[in-house]
Amino acid sequence: MRQRHKPWADDFLKENTNLIIPNPYDKKGKWQDYFGNDNPIHLEIGTGKGQFIAGMATQHPDVNFIGIELAKSIIVMAGSKVKEAGRDNVLLLHVDAADLNGLFADNEISTLYLNFSDPWPKKRHAKRRLTFHTFLEQYRHILQPDGEVVLKTDNQGLFEYSLVSFSQFGLALKDVTLDLHSIEDPENVMTEYEERFSAKGQPIYRCRAQFSQDPQ
Amino acid sequence: MRQRHKPWADDFLKENTNLIIPNPYDKKGKWQDYFGNDNPIHLEIGTGKGQFIAGMATQHPDVNFIGIELAKSIIVMAGSKVKEAGRDNVLLLHVDAADLNGLFADNEISTLYLNFSDPWPKKRHAKRRLTFHTFLEQYRHILQPDGEVVLKTDNQGLFEYSLVSFSQFGLALKDVTLDLHSIEDPENVMTEYEERFSAKGQPIYRCRAQFSQDPQ
Repeated sequence: MRQRHKPWADDFLKENTNLIIPNPYDKKGKWQDYFGNDNPIHLEIGTGKGQFIAGMATQHPDVNFIGIELAKSIIVMAGSKVKEAGRDNVLLLHVDAADLNGLFADNEISTLYLNFSDPWPKKRHAKRRLTFHTFLEQYRHILQPDGEVVLKTDNQGLFEYSLVSFSQFGLALKDVTLDLHSIEDPENVMTEYEERFSAKGQPIYRCRAQFSQDPQ
Repeated sequence: MRQRHKPWADDFLKENTNLIIPNPYDKKGKWQDYFGNDNPIHLEIGTGKGQFIAGMATQHPDVNFIGIELAKSIIVMAGSKVKEAGRDNVLLLHVDAADLNGLFADNEISTLYLNFSDPWPKKRHAKRRLTFHTFLEQYRHILQPDGEVVLKTDNQGLFEYSLVSFSQFGLALKDVTLDLHSIEDPENVMTEYEERFSAKGQPIYRCRAQFSQDPQ
């Protein structure tokens, strides 16, 4: 995502440490305490400008949401959106997604969202895709045994790759749709990207996958 | 597929018992003997007019192909096509696919093709889809442990359903493409349907799935 210089970003971060929290690695294994309830925690990797997480947090007040976003100028936009929505069930982490096992204890997350992740189309960059097996290995740890990975993308190559990668890693597909907006899912919360690409008539792909508890 | 009355169909069947063989259930477990070699056997369920099986048999002379087709007026067209192609590595079975375990012994088949199978879009007809779990259970028996199911279809709903059904049954996806003709696969042999739908710009979906030998 293109980043513009936002002089207010540093100020925003300083003033909103209860939302975009410093030192998140200290909270590993203690996220529910930090939220102050025992609601399930859903994690979005690559939160972008925050439309999805703010919308989901509004739709599901009984769920705690954590969003990870590396770009400072973007995460502050997400922060603004969450504040506008008046939600207190969202935390944003200004970190890289490379060390999820440093951020979360085993079984700490119940659902993990990958929304319009970078497709890294070149084969030699496959290991950077968020559905590469090294990432799945991290997800397997932080997700509860019946936890789900929910992937949405407009990128055909990433979707094809991810279905195979999930499958080879032993995740079971629970649901696949090749044109999300042709079915009317009133619960679907759109990201900014999704809104834009879908308006152009681009199909949006979605799947839900679960680490198998009882492989055949 | 629409069937027209073909008075020559009965004559064709009588005159070509070496190609469209009578009493195929007697050959269970003895198909390689019948072919007279030890080449692997590939099975197509719903052979239709035979363009795929005739083309594949020409492309792979070291593979034995068996095609199943219930409609008499259609299977004789497939028979004609195989004769035209001058292939002796094809057999056609004029039977229903409901009792595959009656036709084939365990591990007798190495690859199974489902080409443009009837999508049976209504939920109450799901059990008739050739990727319903009862069919997968039969495939698991007749396929070798490393055998593959290869599915091609232009039907989005059937494809989505089949990916989930394979996955839930414990098959691992080896390859998924959501637009087969956008990649140039010189080995792809088109069915009559595929040629027609693809010419209209309809994407063709394909996946290859394998019964897991080593589930995680």
